Amino acid sequence: MTYCVGMLLDAGVVMLSDSRTNAGVDNISSFRKVTVFEHPGDRVLVIMSAGNLAASQAVISILRDAIKAGGDEPSLLNAPNMFEAARRMGEAIREVHRRDAAALEDFKLEFNISFVLGGQIAGEGPRLFNVYAAGNFVEATPETPYFQVGELKYGKPIIDRVITRHSSIEQAVKCGLVSMDSTIRSNLSVGLPLDLIVVRSGELRIGRHMVIDADNEYFRSIRSRWSEALKHAFAALPEPDGL
Amino acid sequence: MTYCVGMLLDAGVVMLSDSRTNAGVDNISSFRKVTVFEHPGDRVLVIMSAGNLAASQAVISILRDAIKAGGDEPSLLNAPNMFEAARRMGEAIREVHRRDAAALEDFKLEFNISFVLGGQIAGEGPRLFNVYAAGNFVEATPETPYFQVGELKYGKPIIDRVITRHSSIEQAVKCGLVSMDSTIRSNLSVGLPLDLIVVRSGELRIGRHMVIDADNEYFRSIRSRWSEALKHAFAALPEPDGL
Repeated sequence: MTYCVGMLLDAGVVMLSDSRTNAGVDNISSFRKVTVFEHPGDRVLVIMSAGNLAASQAVISILRDAIKAGGDEPSLLNAPNMFEAARRMGEAIREVHRRDAAALEDFKLEFNISFVLGGQIAGEGPRLFNVYAAGNFVEATPETPYFQVGELKYGKPIIDRVITRHSSIEQAVKCGLVSMDSTIRSNLSVGLPLDLIVVRSGELRIGRHMVIDADNEYFRSIRSRWSEALKHAFAALPEPDGL
Repeated sequence: MTYCVGMLLDAGVVMLSDSRTNAGVDNISSFRKVTVFEHPGDRVLVIMSAGNLAASQAVISILRDAIKAGGDEPSLLNAPNMFEAARRMGEAIREVHRRDAAALEDFKLEFNISFVLGGQIAGEGPRLFNVYAAGNFVEATPETPYFQVGELKYGKPIIDRVITRHSSIEQAVKCGLVSMDSTIRSNLSVGLPLDLIVVRSGELRIGRHMVIDADNEYFRSIRSRWSEALKHAFAALPEPDGL
């Protein structure tokens, strides 16, 4: 399983992903689920994926091949804007679906795959998309400034409570890590290390890429302090009387 | 959708359920999902259900009919212990499955149904079971003293963090309401009023049954204080530097 969250802020885009993938509990491996397409000064696109790993790797492979082909071949590096980049991603997903879906169905496997695409292309602000298995997609709005894919429910409440478009990059990173902590505690199949990517508005390049493992001081401190704070906050709530 | 949680404590059993059921967003109704079978001084059994409402009502109906039949007819009121009660519940589920599953399949509907059964029968301590659509079931253990059915993920983290077998009834009620609050905030299809039932160890009767609606002072106070406490706890966490 996987948990990825992307947040779109006035200040930029924050993308956070775990790296655990599993096919049954005795076969748990770590694969990176984040791919960056970057042309510094012109564009930076970050893709996170959830679902069938073979399918998501095939999609990324098609997107890479289009770039390698060069020339007029439509690719993420020559898309005129993020909307068109999302559309091209959708086309790549449909190509994999045409090739694989029938064979997967023979084995009762679903073509379950979804992506978060975030970043910025020169000439427009940062944008964030959720691209589905059917190749269609939705874009984040001021009211819903984030997308999650994978095992998303455990970590959703804290994001709903604290994140808006006006949150700072630092607040979004902190919230993403708290959300990830809740998910990891409740679902064994989501695990470290984490990939954290920060893209600041207007910079048109990766601002920061951190790999966060169990030794990361900041994440450890967030986890233990949040746990203590929750227990403390819970204890401080009044207890019911008259039961 | 539904959210129900049952907690097994040294002090007794706490059962909490919402009452929202829906078939599409324009057809949302409120149905009670809690059924009590009680013979004060001898036994008290509380059942909460999630999933297909027609199927869960049919199961409850079969269990009631067995009691009405009287005599030697095996029922929840003459089961010698909670394990046997869970087994009889499983049989009722299988009877509904035999009758309905094929017809449901014609309409591509799943026989998705699950129950939490909790309570106490004289001669043993309080016990808690999760009974599945296949009629099989698992029992709560000291390590996992609670079961949830329905829309369970949003509200799971807080239970994992604070509830043990040694928690008091009051702590469990408070935790259940916080868990329900997180679920209601994240999923429109889980809604008020709530049914809260408390069974104290050894009493062999319902200790308290409260219907909690939007006007309930205690629940309102828990919701607003918890929201404030979370925001405060989040704000108090250190922010990352060097991003």
